[in-house]
Amino acid sequence: MTPKGFQFSTVEAAIKKPGRKDLALIWSDVPAIASAVFTTNAVKAAPVLLSQERMRGGRCQALVVNSGNANACTGAKGMADARETSRILALELGIEEQLLQVSSTGVIGVPLPMDRLTAALPALAAGRGDATLDDLAAAIMTTDTFPKTAVRNGPGYIIAGTSKGAGMIMPNMATMLAYIMTDAAVDPGFLNSCFRAAVDRSFNAITIDGDTSTNDTCLMMANGVAGNPVITGGTPEAEEFVRLLEGVLLDLAKLIVKDGEGATKFVEIRITGAADDADAKRAALAVANSSLVKTAFFGQDANWGRIFAAVGYSGARVNPDLLSLWFDEVQMAKNGLFAGGDAEARGTEALRRKEFAVTVEMGLGTGCATVFTCDLSHEYVSINADYRT
Amino acid sequence: MTPKGFQFSTVEAAIKKPGRKDLALIWSDVPAIASAVFTTNAVKAAPVLLSQERMRGGRCQALVVNSGNANACTGAKGMADARETSRILALELGIEEQLLQVSSTGVIGVPLPMDRLTAALPALAAGRGDATLDDLAAAIMTTDTFPKTAVRNGPGYIIAGTSKGAGMIMPNMATMLAYIMTDAAVDPGFLNSCFRAAVDRSFNAITIDGDTSTNDTCLMMANGVAGNPVITGGTPEAEEFVRLLEGVLLDLAKLIVKDGEGATKFVEIRITGAADDADAKRAALAVANSSLVKTAFFGQDANWGRIFAAVGYSGARVNPDLLSLWFDEVQMAKNGLFAGGDAEARGTEALRRKEFAVTVEMGLGTGCATVFTCDLSHEYVSINADYRT
Repeated sequence: MTPKGFQFSTVEAAIKKPGRKDLALIWSDVPAIASAVFTTNAVKAAPVLLSQERMRGGRCQALVVNSGNANACTGAKGMADARETSRILALELGIEEQLLQVSSTGVIGVPLPMDRLTAALPALAAGRGDATLDDLAAAIMTTDTFPKTAVRNGPGYIIAGTSKGAGMIMPNMATMLAYIMTDAAVDPGFLNSCFRAAVDRSFNAITIDGDTSTNDTCLMMANGVAGNPVITGGTPEAEEFVRLLEGVLLDLAKLIVKDGEGATKFVEIRITGAADDADAKRAALAVANSSLVKTAFFGQDANWGRIFAAVGYSGARVNPDLLSLWFDEVQMAKNGLFAGGDAEARGTEALRRKEFAVTVEMGLGTGCATVFTCDLSHEYVSINADYRT
Repeated sequence: MTPKGFQFSTVEAAIKKPGRKDLALIWSDVPAIASAVFTTNAVKAAPVLLSQERMRGGRCQALVVNSGNANACTGAKGMADARETSRILALELGIEEQLLQVSSTGVIGVPLPMDRLTAALPALAAGRGDATLDDLAAAIMTTDTFPKTAVRNGPGYIIAGTSKGAGMIMPNMATMLAYIMTDAAVDPGFLNSCFRAAVDRSFNAITIDGDTSTNDTCLMMANGVAGNPVITGGTPEAEEFVRLLEGVLLDLAKLIVKDGEGATKFVEIRITGAADDADAKRAALAVANSSLVKTAFFGQDANWGRIFAAVGYSGARVNPDLLSLWFDEVQMAKNGLFAGGDAEARGTEALRRKEFAVTVEMGLGTGCATVFTCDLSHEYVSINADYRT
């Protein structure tokens, strides 16, 4: 199920290991209105700098992405390589360069293998329509263990997307790469605002290891090929569009966490009763990023004290005597103290589940936040100790 | 070599595993002037709250510390337990309670075994002088694998100390527990200021896992028994005292990092050329706390791009094109780019060392900072997945 007017192409350019597609194209038959969110890291990869510059026009017709090499920390040569890729491909596609976005993901600090990459561009352009959304999702993977896609059907239109992780996952941005396509006709201003809000509630609410990548990009294209009446803000149609869009983004964000490097647990951290929403998010992220909390999740150890300690150093306003905590439905602590009874046994039981929620009620106000994360396992260490070899 | 007028005692109160001393006393024959730094965590253990209250008097004659139980997240009962411990022990020692400090370290959220603990207090008081500094250091250990002590001889006086880690190590405070004793006569105001400054350059410059504990305490006592002329600020004697004190604190802080949970590498992160010192510390801590950087150290992978990425998201002002990086003497990157040549092979060689330095020159100003950290290994995950069992 692909939104109308979008076509995909994937080829092998020998950037990743042999036998794996590592160069992909998203193509829209007509220029689409577009919105994008990029990494907040001060060290930005060349393709991010180039894409940011081009996104000012608010329109996009094609996106090329390579996996295996991030083209980050590559200086002037990296910028020249991104521009050269763009120049050749735009010629092949017959569009203005301004309408072409460029993404890269993979190892940092190594120049792109430009001879192999540029040699593959004609086949990439010619292959439009040969690949599916799943093929696209597979071609952008690095340490991901499965391709990630999500689709929602609206009234007369489709919203579809793909994303990839799986390390260096932390707001803002939380994803490394995510592309969302719809054939709906949408007002550009409305698209921009609702896309950014949806990113905040999805990709900016997940964390795996607290590291913010140099290449994070989340891009949305709406090409209007479905022929629906243009969706504008403040209408029932807009509400429905937002609901569907958030569904796609939240699905894709959760898939990234589920495929977190070495993850064995999917954990929802819910903070309620914080002094305000910002405090709640601070507390949720401190818990979600604590190595001690994450290893306890891996060990299925109902160590609620480590969670209170993380809330305590998060920077949020805290009254320790008002903190309560649940693992799923099991109350472990009440007003700062162990809940007693069989809480230890039942809490441990809850942590044996593959997915569970940790709820911390802070007892101060109405601030709340939800963050999704995973555990810290032996496998995470193994993957990242040897990533480049 | 113990400073004059100090005596130690250690007993087994069956708080930790059988066969291990877990209750210790530091005793000064006369009331000492004292200074202390406590955890910044909003969730503070009961003994920290009690000790903070008492430290306002600026004097201390004795300190009791138990290992195996942190007496944190234990509410009103925890406070009552800390006070009861103090009441009984002060009676046994024949001193005012105000002069007695109380510390705890270990599992969070479990009430102290007060029957066993109070039963051991008379023997603890009676045993003054039976234990050495090494015995004291051993009795305060939790997951530490070796006791930590440091000593410096001054002109006519001695400065000695002990510390323990080994997880939940992050400024501020960086240590979980550290006690420094000197028999020097020191001006109270000068002691307070030079102790705090030395803590900033030692315990607040180490990080293992980015978690700030609920119990961190660093306490200094100066009892004046050596009989030297009182050391006051702005004198050559004061300069020498500061140098010796910093030596003790830095030794103890580095020992904590070397004994970091699961650590196989001791790494010095040096940031130079930052816009200011605060930016340098931000960048150094971001690098030192990055799970991706730390797993690369464990894997002996010369992945300098991850270090640039961490500097990039640290919040420090960064110009990516001005960043340069060295592993020990090997330049890996220059002005944002890979240094080329045989840097990869030689950098990998440097990372094979058990101790090495990472230097990042930011090219912006004169700000600098040094932070000590360790790698993130399989063993860290194992230790913390099963800490309570």
